[in-house]
Parts: sequence; C-alpha cells; structure tokens
Amino acid sequence: MKARVHVMLKNGVLDPQGEAVRHALGALGFDKVEGVRQGKVIDLDLADGATEADVTEMCEKLLANTVIESYSIEIQ
Amino acid sequence: MKARVHVMLKNGVLDPQGEAVRHALGALGFDKVEGVRQGKVIDLDLADGATEADVTEMCEKLLANTVIESYSIEIQ
Repeated sequence: MKARVHVMLKNGVLDPQGEAVRHALGALGFDKVEGVRQGKVIDLDLADGATEADVTEMCEKLLANTVIESYSIEIQ
Repeated sequence: MKARVHVMLKNGVLDPQGEAVRHALGALGFDKVEGVRQGKVIDLDLADGATEADVTEMCEKLLANTVIESYSIEIQ
C-alpha cells in the first residue's frame, strides 16, 4: 500500500519559506503570484496489513506538529 | 487560480530526510513502513490570467532543481 501525506502550516501561521519563494518569484518577473504556502509531502510505502489508521497515528506522533501544522492523507 | 506543485527527489537520488523519517517511524514501533520519500509541496495563489505554462516556467527556473528533482503540477 502506498500513502501520501501532506503536511502544511495551518492558516494564520507565518510561513517564511513560502514568503521567500513568493519574493523570489516576484524578483524573477512572475508578477501574478499572490500567495505561496510551502509544506511537506511524505510518500510512504507500507507493507500489506497497514491501514489508514496507522498512517493517522504516524502523523499525530511524528510527521506533523499538530500545534501549528495540519495534515491530510491520501491512500493510493 | 490555485496551483499545487509537488517537488520530489528523482528515483535513485539519495533522500536522507526520507531515510531519517523511516528510521524514526521504525523506532516508534511502526514496523510496516518499507520506504519513505520526502518532498516539498508548494501551493500557489495566482492572479487571473496566469496559465499552467507560467507555473511550469516557475518550476524550471526556481521551484525545482531539475538535475535531481522532478515536479508535477495540479491546477485546482
């Protein structure tokens, strides 16, 4: 089973990486960029028998800092 | 227009972040994790008139290092 996890900073949490990308894109002449948020994507290759609940537990325990980050799971 | 860009290390390129996550998950008792690859996700908020071609150009020029990274674009 394969799972893809997206971890993004919650809305309202300052995202300096995203801001840096936005500035850099502006400096390169991309003037239509109004906002950028950067996060992490984690692709997990799981043995048979693993469930979405396991992935949720991984997110809660390790992959995301749930104080400032939100996550979403896609099973593929 | 909103676009989501995924930037992942190409297959065969060593991914120390992914390996670190895999080890940490193993240490936490998640023994069904066979592989982990970590990448970036960049959410772009674009003004009207921006096209997918613009986003491709952003990837080629700034967002991805195409020597070692591949990218994919989703228009939302």
